[in-house]
Amino acid sequence: MSILVAIEGWDVPSWVERFQRLFPERKVVTLDEPFDRREVHYVVSWKHPHGALSGLPNLAAIFSLGAGVDHIMADPRLPDAPVVRVVDADLTTRMSEYVVLHALAHMRQLPRYMAQQRAGTWEDDRFQPCAGDVRVGVMGLGELGRDAAAKLRTMGFRVAGWSRTGRTMDGVETHSGEEGLDAFLARTDILVVLLPLTEATRGILNLDLFAKLAKDGPLGGPILINAGRGGLQVEGDILAALESGVLKAASLDVFEVEPLPAESPLWTHPRVIVTPHNAAMSHPDTISRLIADQIARLESGGALTNVVDPQAGY
Amino acid sequence: MSILVAIEGWDVPSWVERFQRLFPERKVVTLDEPFDRREVHYVVSWKHPHGALSGLPNLAAIFSLGAGVDHIMADPRLPDAPVVRVVDADLTTRMSEYVVLHALAHMRQLPRYMAQQRAGTWEDDRFQPCAGDVRVGVMGLGELGRDAAAKLRTMGFRVAGWSRTGRTMDGVETHSGEEGLDAFLARTDILVVLLPLTEATRGILNLDLFAKLAKDGPLGGPILINAGRGGLQVEGDILAALESGVLKAASLDVFEVEPLPAESPLWTHPRVIVTPHNAAMSHPDTISRLIADQIARLESGGALTNVVDPQAGY
Ligand SMILES: NC(=O)c1ccc[n+]([C@@H]2O[C@H](COP(=O)([O-])OP(=O)(O)OC[C@H]3O[C@@H](n4cnc5c(N)ncnc54)[C@H](OP(=O)(O)O)[C@@H]3O)[C@@H](O)[C@H]2O)c1
Ligand SMILES: NC(=O)c1ccc[n+]([C@@H]2O[C@H](COP(=O)([O-])OP(=O)(O)OC[C@H]3O[C@@H](n4cnc5c(N)ncnc54)[C@H](OP(=O)(O)O)[C@@H]3O)[C@@H](O)[C@H]2O)c1
Repeated sequence: MSILVAIEGWDVPSWVERFQRLFPERKVVTLDEPFDRREVHYVVSWKHPHGALSGLPNLAAIFSLGAGVDHIMADPRLPDAPVVRVVDADLTTRMSEYVVLHALAHMRQLPRYMAQQRAGTWEDDRFQPCAGDVRVGVMGLGELGRDAAAKLRTMGFRVAGWSRTGRTMDGVETHSGEEGLDAFLARTDILVVLLPLTEATRGILNLDLFAKLAKDGPLGGPILINAGRGGLQVEGDILAALESGVLKAASLDVFEVEPLPAESPLWTHPRVIVTPHNAAMSHPDTISRLIADQIARLESGGALTNVVDPQAGY
Repeated sequence: MSILVAIEGWDVPSWVERFQRLFPERKVVTLDEPFDRREVHYVVSWKHPHGALSGLPNLAAIFSLGAGVDHIMADPRLPDAPVVRVVDADLTTRMSEYVVLHALAHMRQLPRYMAQQRAGTWEDDRFQPCAGDVRVGVMGLGELGRDAAAKLRTMGFRVAGWSRTGRTMDGVETHSGEEGLDAFLARTDILVVLLPLTEATRGILNLDLFAKLAKDGPLGGPILINAGRGGLQVEGDILAALESGVLKAASLDVFEVEPLPAESPLWTHPRVIVTPHNAAMSHPDTISRLIADQIARLESGGALTNVVDPQAGY
């Protein structure tokens, strides 16, 4: 019943140590060493190399080290085992902090006032819109989207949400599916994106979509906040939309390529706030504890939770 | 029953026009013209010159054009009439936007990430504190402080409040009076100031007080957010506290002298966010409508609301 740590681009030794501490009796192995493939019952994955998980005859579960599983589902030779993701109240709270912070920062023009400060200019703008004037649309009403929507509502924003299967929420106007998208966009001044990256959502944030956002809002144009995944967005289209006024501003935590390449014009765009994919971190100790809980539950006859739907891809 | 518009430093003609529209049958006069002092029943004041309201034998009420009344109470020759202030849900909401925005911006290090972006640096900081790790202390639990405290709580912060008379609030640890101040400060990482300026509160934000804030918090030092009044703060002490590490950072919306003088080191301090006293604006149309409602209520036999306690000064 060994555990295979299949991680790329995230400190492997610290993860091995963490799982070894939680499972002192088991073997914790990595892709860099020889191991008995029949002994592997569990994989913990972060961007594992495609194909690396095939040929594990006793695999019982693949655990993502994050809330997203696109890095796992993208593997064309993924074995047929349940994929489990992280759902963590602490991560959810952090994401809502990010979303509320950036929605307020754009609405209250914080970058403008910080620039004015650097220039030594005292100039108010008495009639700033307030939250009650601003329509936020949340794409994705899952673990993260629902909490963000609720907190945006508490702050006074007018909130709507969009999901695949038609989730509803008290006090939140909800839309769903392709057929509900246009109406959702047409009433949205600030678009908050908390979608997973799947075949259905890749590249969804493109010029076509931006052009359907509200044009009559109080912010001088629609604002994009994407903290889902970089693959959701077409960065050339974001830049074009900012140039032509189709978008007023954006906060981006995720990018097509990460780290964001030095030559990307997003770095220096005056109306874009770039953050380094840290909208919502879980503490590795929390993640590993959640995975240990799942294994304990499974081995005592219970069921795994937060299992990904292989059809939907999230 | 004429209305005297006693305003300095805020567009007088627009206010005259507004009240004339609301009271087409009455005389609306200003300090710049001759008028019959016996006819004046109501004064609307914003920073009226001291003494300008004496000798009004039929004065029934003095209306402040803002939530604060320090500009009125400071007049040593203030006549003995009720002073009424603005309480407006819209203003309250805006103040909470400001408070939550700045608390989150400091906790989530938005200025740091914006500076990193300007420098083209991709560097996360995986173990940022989250709201549940951070203790916010709200000085003043009135109209504004209570709403801000509730919204900070929703965002996950650990919130305490401090008042004069011992206000309580669900889920908020409350302290009061001089005797409760030290315990309140000792558990506070982010100090939010929504006090009125009175004889008891002038200069309260000084080095002595800053030194009593929590030293064991997760933000690298305590943070000050003052959106009450500039007279509450000793700016030399804020700068000294920032220099010595007694304070980590500050957001200031109000200043000893406004506009903030060009030579103030606050303008260029890298850990201070300066905003031009616009944390919470009311729309003038809302303010004038609220005053018209008060007059209508009074003249139909009802009582004025939001009347200032002349002893307490707020
Ligand atoms: N930037 C960061 O630091 C960070 C941190 C954590 C997570 N994330 C990202 O956030 C994403 C969302 O996380 P979560 O925990 O909220 O996921 P979740 O609980 O699975 O929720 C996903 C939501 O998206 C909706 N959705 C999926 N495909 C859709 C489609 N084709 N059309 C319309 N709606 C669709 C789902 O609709 P239904 O409700 O109808 O199923 C659901 O409401 C993750 O996948 C990850 O990529 C980013
Ligand atoms: N920056 C801006 O744009 C802006 C906009 C609007 C207002 N303001 C400022 O915000 C202030 C607060 O407004 P508000 O409507 O919340 O006022 P409020 O309803 O009168 O509340 C004032 C609060 O401060 C407390 N307080 C007063 N003196 C105190 C003392 N000596 N010690 C301890 N606590 C004391 C009061 O205690 P009790 O509850 O025990 O009476 C009360 O909780 C205004 O006076 C104004 O200066 C600023």
